[in-house]
Amino acid sequence: MKAKVFVSLKKSVLDPQGKTIHTSLRNLGYSSVEDVRQGKFFEISLDSSLSRLDAQKEVERIARSVLTNPVIEEFSYEIE
Amino acid sequence: MKAKVFVSLKKSVLDPQGKTIHTSLRNLGYSSVEDVRQGKFFEISLDSSLSRLDAQKEVERIARSVLTNPVIEEFSYEIE
Repeated sequence: MKAKVFVSLKKSVLDPQGKTIHTSLRNLGYSSVEDVRQGKFFEISLDSSLSRLDAQKEVERIARSVLTNPVIEEFSYEIE
Repeated sequence: MKAKVFVSLKKSVLDPQGKTIHTSLRNLGYSSVEDVRQGKFFEISLDSSLSRLDAQKEVERIARSVLTNPVIEEFSYEIE
């Protein structure tokens, strides 16, 4: 079973890396770009004997306690 | 209009960062995790006057020429 976890900065947190990419894109002529924000994602392969519910719980626990800094980041995930 | 671009290392490329996370998760007791790979994602806000097709073309061009290193990375995207 595979899970994808997406970690991004909270909306209220400045994203200088995204801003830099945005500026570069503008300078390269991509004028239709209005904003860029960068995040991370993780592809996690899980033991296939896990039930879907257990996998969901495990991924949520991992995302919350290891992959995300709850002060400035938020996460979402999907199980495939 | 919003687009999400996901950039990940090609399957054939080693991912030491993912390996480190995997080892840490194992050490923390998450024994059902079999593999971890890390990637980046970008949330791009586009001019809302763009047609869906134009947005798609623009995002694909940006992903291919700016956000991805084609030697070691591959990308996928979705338009919302």
